[in-house]
Amino acid sequence: MKFVKTSALLALLSVATFNAQSLKSPDGKFEMNFNLKDGVPYYNLKYNGDVIVEDSKLGLRLLKDGDIQFASEIENKNNQGKNLDNGFVKVAEKFDSKNETWQPILGEKKNYINHYNELAVTLNQSENDRQIIIKFRLFNDGLGFRYEFPQQKNLNYFIIKEEDTEIDLPWDMKAWWLAGDYDTEEYQTQTTKLSEIPARWPKSFDGNASQNLVKNGVQIPLMLKKEGKNPLYINLGEAAVLNYPAANLELDATNFKFKTHLTPDAQGAKGYIQTPATTPWRTIIVSPKAEVVLDSKMLFNLNEPTKYTDTSYIHPTKYMGVWWEMIIGKSQWAYSTANNVHIGKTDFSKLTPNGSHAANNTKVKEYIDFAAANGFQGLLIEGWNTGWEDWFGHSKEFVFDFITPYPDFDIKMLNDYAHAKGIKLIMHHETSGSATNYERWSDKAFQLMNKYGYDATKTGYVGNIIPRGEHHYSQWTINHYYRIIEKAHEYKIMVNSHESVRPTGESRTYPNWIAAEAARGTEFEAFGGNNPDHQTILPFTRWMGGPMDYTPGIFQTKLDYYFPGDKRFVQTTLAKQLALYVVMYQPLQMAADLPENYARHMDAFQFIKDVAADWDDTKILSAEPGDYIHTARKAKGTDNWFVGGITDENSRDFTVDFSFLDKGKKYEATIYADGKDADYIKNPQSYQIYKKTVDSKTKLPIHLVRSGGYAISLKPIK
Amino acid sequence: MKFVKTSALLALLSVATFNAQSLKSPDGKFEMNFNLKDGVPYYNLKYNGDVIVEDSKLGLRLLKDGDIQFASEIENKNNQGKNLDNGFVKVAEKFDSKNETWQPILGEKKNYINHYNELAVTLNQSENDRQIIIKFRLFNDGLGFRYEFPQQKNLNYFIIKEEDTEIDLPWDMKAWWLAGDYDTEEYQTQTTKLSEIPARWPKSFDGNASQNLVKNGVQIPLMLKKEGKNPLYINLGEAAVLNYPAANLELDATNFKFKTHLTPDAQGAKGYIQTPATTPWRTIIVSPKAEVVLDSKMLFNLNEPTKYTDTSYIHPTKYMGVWWEMIIGKSQWAYSTANNVHIGKTDFSKLTPNGSHAANNTKVKEYIDFAAANGFQGLLIEGWNTGWEDWFGHSKEFVFDFITPYPDFDIKMLNDYAHAKGIKLIMHHETSGSATNYERWSDKAFQLMNKYGYDATKTGYVGNIIPRGEHHYSQWTINHYYRIIEKAHEYKIMVNSHESVRPTGESRTYPNWIAAEAARGTEFEAFGGNNPDHQTILPFTRWMGGPMDYTPGIFQTKLDYYFPGDKRFVQTTLAKQLALYVVMYQPLQMAADLPENYARHMDAFQFIKDVAADWDDTKILSAEPGDYIHTARKAKGTDNWFVGGITDENSRDFTVDFSFLDKGKKYEATIYADGKDADYIKNPQSYQIYKKTVDSKTKLPIHLVRSGGYAISLKPIK
Repeated sequence: MKFVKTSALLALLSVATFNAQSLKSPDGKFEMNFNLKDGVPYYNLKYNGDVIVEDSKLGLRLLKDGDIQFASEIENKNNQGKNLDNGFVKVAEKFDSKNETWQPILGEKKNYINHYNELAVTLNQSENDRQIIIKFRLFNDGLGFRYEFPQQKNLNYFIIKEEDTEIDLPWDMKAWWLAGDYDTEEYQTQTTKLSEIPARWPKSFDGNASQNLVKNGVQIPLMLKKEGKNPLYINLGEAAVLNYPAANLELDATNFKFKTHLTPDAQGAKGYIQTPATTPWRTIIVSPKAEVVLDSKMLFNLNEPTKYTDTSYIHPTKYMGVWWEMIIGKSQWAYSTANNVHIGKTDFSKLTPNGSHAANNTKVKEYIDFAAANGFQGLLIEGWNTGWEDWFGHSKEFVFDFITPYPDFDIKMLNDYAHAKGIKLIMHHETSGSATNYERWSDKAFQLMNKYGYDATKTGYVGNIIPRGEHHYSQWTINHYYRIIEKAHEYKIMVNSHESVRPTGESRTYPNWIAAEAARGTEFEAFGGNNPDHQTILPFTRWMGGPMDYTPGIFQTKLDYYFPGDKRFVQTTLAKQLALYVVMYQPLQMAADLPENYARHMDAFQFIKDVAADWDDTKILSAEPGDYIHTARKAKGTDNWFVGGITDENSRDFTVDFSFLDKGKKYEATIYADGKDADYIKNPQSYQIYKKTVDSKTKLPIHLVRSGGYAISLKPIK
Repeated sequence: MKFVKTSALLALLSVATFNAQSLKSPDGKFEMNFNLKDGVPYYNLKYNGDVIVEDSKLGLRLLKDGDIQFASEIENKNNQGKNLDNGFVKVAEKFDSKNETWQPILGEKKNYINHYNELAVTLNQSENDRQIIIKFRLFNDGLGFRYEFPQQKNLNYFIIKEEDTEIDLPWDMKAWWLAGDYDTEEYQTQTTKLSEIPARWPKSFDGNASQNLVKNGVQIPLMLKKEGKNPLYINLGEAAVLNYPAANLELDATNFKFKTHLTPDAQGAKGYIQTPATTPWRTIIVSPKAEVVLDSKMLFNLNEPTKYTDTSYIHPTKYMGVWWEMIIGKSQWAYSTANNVHIGKTDFSKLTPNGSHAANNTKVKEYIDFAAANGFQGLLIEGWNTGWEDWFGHSKEFVFDFITPYPDFDIKMLNDYAHAKGIKLIMHHETSGSATNYERWSDKAFQLMNKYGYDATKTGYVGNIIPRGEHHYSQWTINHYYRIIEKAHEYKIMVNSHESVRPTGESRTYPNWIAAEAARGTEFEAFGGNNPDHQTILPFTRWMGGPMDYTPGIFQTKLDYYFPGDKRFVQTTLAKQLALYVVMYQPLQMAADLPENYARHMDAFQFIKDVAADWDDTKILSAEPGDYIHTARKAKGTDNWFVGGITDENSRDFTVDFSFLDKGKKYEATIYADGKDADYIKNPQSYQIYKKTVDSKTKLPIHLVRSGGYAISLKPIK
């Protein structure tokens, strides 16, 4: 505050008082304080009286005339250069609260609780009479807040240059982070202190099919831990990223201060806004317990309830896929030896077959047979459609038509065959990043799915986005994903997107967007490997906003089985692969390995056959990011429970406390654990299976070898 | 050529001989010489033995690794940095010729003659074993040539950094030019010597809704004249711009040398090529007579014959429009007083009407009545659909849905009413440049047209293109125009595009693309004026590749008629407006003024009622760019002829020589000429109409006042 005469002091004090406001969480443990300092909005956050977010600035900068010339609102001289980050006075404040229980269509629990106190502060920029609202919601597990732009005389259209929301932490913290990027999250998670990020950053990423790094930036959700005697976990994220770019965070590693960094479009613009509009919610989940963070449903609560009237077609599905054999290089997506094909012109029946096309009638029938015999509901087939010969790396806009099968894929026969055995084929729509082309064909593609009885599609966005210059996380492309999701809903189709933006809780609103990949999945075990701690981190980061299609279940972890001398291997034990089905929530859950590998381990495969894909309840038994996760879940509509536990590169002992079970009830537990001589490098396929009767008082000690795990299925004894 | 040892001289000479090749035009007057100098391709052009294009380089530069990272072909180390402009040896040459007569679906003549000799030179870049073909076609009116890229092992995908085709003229020349731009041609034509272009260039343009100027660049078709005793006219252009950006020309004003400058995309790339592929044709039309240039059909001849099997729906149409009254500001496109609307959400019936929405039931019926009573076939209605409240300047992607009428526009009733009177309504699809949105809605939009019996649409692209960063003339957007044209053909719909790329003869291939605006049309008379020489230049430039929707026929040229004190006026006499119907070929021809203005001049209006829109024959009686054009045309399927003559800011006398008429036949001529006291500024509505019997021996002197003109209709006397 500038120097003022004493005579004005009283007036200023009252203004200061009026400009400040506090909000408490329902349980009273959190306190958020809003304040205007010289017209600039600030907030801070306290937990149990301790400051955990120091005074942090809020606001947005807008693109000015001369930068990009297409928003006449900005070109208007009266508004030139007037950012939405200063010159404000508070003109209104409104408190609200909610305590509701809602039921996700698919979810980790039957009921999600949405309980918060709300403060909406209306700010007026007097210079040009523009109003914005900053809305805070304080839950018992942390804070969400966003900007709202009501439709008004002087604020109808604007273009964002940057959102400058700050999160200023008081201390250095341990962080599990990914290098910031506009196009991919498929990097190895780095574990360092905040202060160490700048030094590590240049070595924190490898190559990707599409990448545009944000120097010294990190991705969200970002998991943080204040170490020491009284640890505190903080998770920074965002919710409801709709008609807005996704954010990275810039870090001031000296002051432990973060600031949002939005994804730009081809011209550097970061959001074209027409009022009324709202930004995504910025989220700060806080707890002394990692388990509470992992259990938070804040991102879902901050999304709107669905407006879909028919959700009957949305259902959990376990599926196999003609997929892993292409990932490891045993067979191919492409049908022919050609390397330059033209969709709609090339006659694929006249090309020379390459002899290793996986999606052929014979092989697909074998997969159908195996999947049907083992109780699966779906079979994904990749490489079924023409165009894979030159699908990648050429910025080819008309790369696929999504409706024309290869000559050796009889779509009608195979669907008939599958349906007769209770299997639905799962469609594959790889776009190669050519979103414009997918939009052109999406009606025909979904009509084909309806015709043949597919009810789910895996979409893919490998490579740079077309429109060229757009990014996987820019506003246009995010709107594209929702155009597809909404169109899929018209056709009653579930979507599982790969290489899309990560979900930020929108499955509450768009429940047919079942899952996304949007992080380093199992496929990277064949592309350079996932670290043994990888799966213990993802649930704290990528998973916070919705399921990931991680595609677990690899039994044949060493690839020299196929290719003598091949040094690649999946960096877990077989038992840990089983545990992932419980630790990693995904209602469209895959068993990713080849049938022949499951056939050699039918006893262990039994767990995958038994495990549920959707849940009535979930208990995080114990968790520490980067170290271990132990999760228990109750299968949807039954009294069966499943438990999964995994560890990082360290072997560990854990005691499963079954107190989550119904009191007095006996259960038959089948335990799938690492073998005594198991080792994720030397002996990954060593496992042991044993049964035991347990009840709510049972405590079962289990040993996890390095990068090992265990899975338990529990059925009530009648 | 570098210094070489004498011992190698003979070998080099023979290589030099082999590397050179000549081609002559069918009439022997033109000679094109191709040569390789140190592996770089060159050509020159002679006319009657005189060099008219000096040795000029050919070739393309490609984007290298590091500039744009999505063409793996380029990222391949073996190919890095290897442009397609050097290191060539000639490996084959092939001569061909053609002399065909073909019939355009709509055209200025019944028969177009396509007569040329062809040389195709195959060049091999030995370093990487890549072959390209340069194909030359020499006509009796000049040269066309292009690059061809056969599909081959080492050339499958590449991205163009720039096409560097040179046209090196021997002399300074008079030029009629527009400032180079990636988005608009709506500038006033400048008339200077080539050497004067750099000095004039900075003052050669005004503002536009979308503009990206090419510094010191000029647009094509570019009309040039070597002045003096033996004048020579040269027209530089391009034909068949398909899946490729449109070009401007860069000028070296000291050496009178041009070079192509393609339109980039958002990332600066100038064409994503998958082989086999061809570039557009570069065209050099040459004649000592301006009339021959104006009569050239070279650009059409260089396009492929249509593959359409059904062209029955394509027909000439004269139409009126609910349009000019909005252009001058008398009424509005928008229905309401709102300034921020959301398509699909805003309930327009609840908004406050602005009271001056033109496309309302009452007014449209009046237009239908007048158009029907006067023999028109069509009525364009703009502002019929929701969204005009904030359609422009906000980079609003979902700006229109193309299917929802305003509350006061009863689409069924009005179409029924029109059809009952023999009128078809003409659809208006303004996109506001949001091409992605139009593609999403185009099926529904065309289905609506089919449902209500519309068979033609006027499309519009006012403002910057979405995908953001693309340009009106970039490859992506040009592909968009053709996607729309092809889809329109599926629905049997004719297209008249505004603010699109200029046509380059493609109506031969896509005959439902009837016309485009793509230059400064009549609307600019209300936006700052068109110079009096404007209409004498456009046929030599914009028109070379296809019809322009200039929208002539303004009788009430002074706008103070509507708005006392308004200084705006259409800078021609009324008689010149009539002449434009003959001078300016447009088979979808508009009578643009308000019915009330025609009603006050029904005698002059008779010419517009009588004049044809499509032709069996055309004779350019006399023409000089920037000065005057006198054209005679024979109406399609009749023995009626029409003559039109216009002049620039100078009054002129002209004698119409009727020797084009059938020998021995008598015709009743109705002459619409400037009144004796006519003046385009002081007395534009002064005209005289008189009849005269004429035959092929008649010579009729006519006086044209400054910016005046005359029109003659000729009917055989039976």
